[in-house]
Amino acid sequence: MSKFNAHDIAAAAKTAFQEAQTLPSTERIVALHEILKSLNASKTEILLANEEDMRAAEAEVKAGNMSETLLKRLDLNRGDKWDSMLQGILDVAALPDPTGNVSYASELDDELELFRVACPIGVLLVIFEARPEVVVNIASLAIKSGNAAILKGGKESNRTTSLLAKAISAGLSKTLIPELYIQAIQTRAEVSSLLQLDQFIDLVIPRGSNSLVKNIQNNTRIPVMGHADGLCSVFIDEQADVTKAVRVVLDSKTDYPAACNASETLILHESVVHTVWPAVAKALLEANVQLLCDPASLDALKKVTPKPTNLTKLVSPSEPSSYNTEHLDLILSVVVLPSIQSAIQFINSHSSHHTDAIVTESDIAASTFCRGVDSAGTFVNASTRFADGFRYGFGTEVGISNGRIHARGPVGLDGLVTYKYMMRSKAPSGHIVGEFGTGKKQYKHKPINVASVPFL
Amino acid sequence: MSKFNAHDIAAAAKTAFQEAQTLPSTERIVALHEILKSLNASKTEILLANEEDMRAAEAEVKAGNMSETLLKRLDLNRGDKWDSMLQGILDVAALPDPTGNVSYASELDDELELFRVACPIGVLLVIFEARPEVVVNIASLAIKSGNAAILKGGKESNRTTSLLAKAISAGLSKTLIPELYIQAIQTRAEVSSLLQLDQFIDLVIPRGSNSLVKNIQNNTRIPVMGHADGLCSVFIDEQADVTKAVRVVLDSKTDYPAACNASETLILHESVVHTVWPAVAKALLEANVQLLCDPASLDALKKVTPKPTNLTKLVSPSEPSSYNTEHLDLILSVVVLPSIQSAIQFINSHSSHHTDAIVTESDIAASTFCRGVDSAGTFVNASTRFADGFRYGFGTEVGISNGRIHARGPVGLDGLVTYKYMMRSKAPSGHIVGEFGTGKKQYKHKPINVASVPFL
Repeated sequence: MSKFNAHDIAAAAKTAFQEAQTLPSTERIVALHEILKSLNASKTEILLANEEDMRAAEAEVKAGNMSETLLKRLDLNRGDKWDSMLQGILDVAALPDPTGNVSYASELDDELELFRVACPIGVLLVIFEARPEVVVNIASLAIKSGNAAILKGGKESNRTTSLLAKAISAGLSKTLIPELYIQAIQTRAEVSSLLQLDQFIDLVIPRGSNSLVKNIQNNTRIPVMGHADGLCSVFIDEQADVTKAVRVVLDSKTDYPAACNASETLILHESVVHTVWPAVAKALLEANVQLLCDPASLDALKKVTPKPTNLTKLVSPSEPSSYNTEHLDLILSVVVLPSIQSAIQFINSHSSHHTDAIVTESDIAASTFCRGVDSAGTFVNASTRFADGFRYGFGTEVGISNGRIHARGPVGLDGLVTYKYMMRSKAPSGHIVGEFGTGKKQYKHKPINVASVPFL
Repeated sequence: MSKFNAHDIAAAAKTAFQEAQTLPSTERIVALHEILKSLNASKTEILLANEEDMRAAEAEVKAGNMSETLLKRLDLNRGDKWDSMLQGILDVAALPDPTGNVSYASELDDELELFRVACPIGVLLVIFEARPEVVVNIASLAIKSGNAAILKGGKESNRTTSLLAKAISAGLSKTLIPELYIQAIQTRAEVSSLLQLDQFIDLVIPRGSNSLVKNIQNNTRIPVMGHADGLCSVFIDEQADVTKAVRVVLDSKTDYPAACNASETLILHESVVHTVWPAVAKALLEANVQLLCDPASLDALKKVTPKPTNLTKLVSPSEPSSYNTEHLDLILSVVVLPSIQSAIQFINSHSSHHTDAIVTESDIAASTFCRGVDSAGTFVNASTRFADGFRYGFGTEVGISNGRIHARGPVGLDGLVTYKYMMRSKAPSGHIVGEFGTGKKQYKHKPINVASVPFL
């Protein structure tokens, strides 16, 4: 794609999408297997390009322009990354088809049937970070769900991703699905141009920071399904069990601190400050978690005897900004509040509406918390780390959406489809609206029990 | 609301929404009945204000600044408008609760259950046209679905809508639902300010022209569910039955030409130009429909004997822009195309993706059309006028969405809800992620068959 033209790319994606709509959905599975073959055939070439990307990135790391973490993510030669990337294609191919299912069917009149049927959204523009294998992952998800896609990876992985995309197109060329069904672009300027083309692009999926997502939302009319920060919290209710509190808080914070579903804030009901909190704090400090405490929680810790390990080293006063910070590290902000109502209010105004948990033995508190907390996930006596598409049983994950429209929380293949209504009259002279009304025919609205549209 | 402050209004709406989340959903039905009482108590005052709005509008009509149609829409004193407005509240109150239903439930492990449960979206900002009764209609829908709402009607109806909103708040004040759950604003400047407040407002619903919807999409990060133009078409396939063709085309065009689900374009397969088309044209011309014809369809009409009624008066050549025009009148653009594939392409590039119909006796053509046409509604041998929430059996209609994300086509109460995930561990020591993995516990992912969350 040497001579870039956003209009041509987007128009080609839309045409490819529309052409593929009349193909049987089995062709998508054929395509995934052809892509796997094609990637294997280009393996040497792709891994060499990845080594080149790595060399350039290592220079950036040395110059202090890139982090070691980013460098590691870029490496496609490491461990079983290549094989698990290919296994991912087979896993997606084996998942149930998210399209074609009927979610509402009604007989409006004798011989007039209405069906609401799941169908692809259209053209997706997906913007993501350094890891090059995401190109293959997203391409698989798009193809499986019947969507065309334009993909933009991190610029550090351009050599790798362009060859991955080339191999994907080569795989598609062996099928009835158009080659331009999946396209990769390379620069931010290209993204900016594409964001204007709402006549061709139907959904933008940015996976990255809050600022990336907001910047995209500010610059497009196209709907955005953002995957951004997670500021999750755990609330220890006045009726909390101490064992559950220790286990849930520790797992939520330490199981994988860099994940968006790790907890960043601990909220204590004031009645547990001298009972449950010391045990929880002891476990956190032993796990090397730095605690940013409000005066009440700090004060309580100072009174604990014997003095907890690491107290002086790891405990310090919090600041107001602590409670709006996604630490992504072994750091936890702690606040004491007088009631479950104030805890819910605190969460609703500070959390990123991702996932929040309560530790409680009270059914009433559990219900109040789960209804009142305005987040995609509200958990009782379970770690926030469970918020994940695989753990939820979706088989795969597009990401975890911070929005509340269309798809919320962990998004599986179902998040990449929409629906359309199909209606068919089997009456000898068709159906017209003019025959219905006062003194005329009435609508039956009789539910039909079918899983798919009979005439497709 | 004399001293307007967008931030205060939006923040108050969010607070009202969050406070109402822990109330039982039956309180919403209580609220709808209280609002009905309150409106009846203020009936005289409201209808007087409406007369004032009408007088001001009549002056605008005389000055040539407003259409007679708009004037009629404004009139709340006309016919049974008041009573049917109140009946609408009772109808919405009687509909099934769209919240609380479980759409996915899974046992992830012994004593660890996950539920995906329908819940309100949050704060809605609804922008609509002249008819003042829409305030009551939208307020009812918002309350029934558990959403708070900020409403902006047409400026011509400001006196009426502000009193309607006042009566709604008075009704709410008799319930546990906060008074500021429903608020009305008066000016476009207020809308502009509110569009910036994505921390408080969760969904914008504009009901109006394409340019209104696009303008809003261009100026906000908040998701937009637009209700705009309908450019619907009917395709007469080569295997069309002539009776069905005549009935479906005539009803689609003439049943209510000003509606968004009326057809604006007729597409003829070239093989029916001398067979089905003359009969369809005859019926349309007798119904006083003006025909904007491409050369092929025009030519065919000229050869018909005897000469159809109104031929000279009502038939003229089309222009390229004819096929992108929502006539909203007894005008139909006609084009002849060589195949069903070209008809699908034509529809996908010219229609507004609202509703399109095929007239055919062929199952293959029906399937190809319904899959290939990228519109919210694809109909076989049925009038495009069936695209409507009431006709679909939803009991009510928020509008007809032109978007394809979240809710598409006619939107019922279900379009005003989203979902959240609730998880509960009943295990003696709660559930943590660290216990799962290779060589450890495995996820069960066993479906649970429940309609609602057991612990709510």
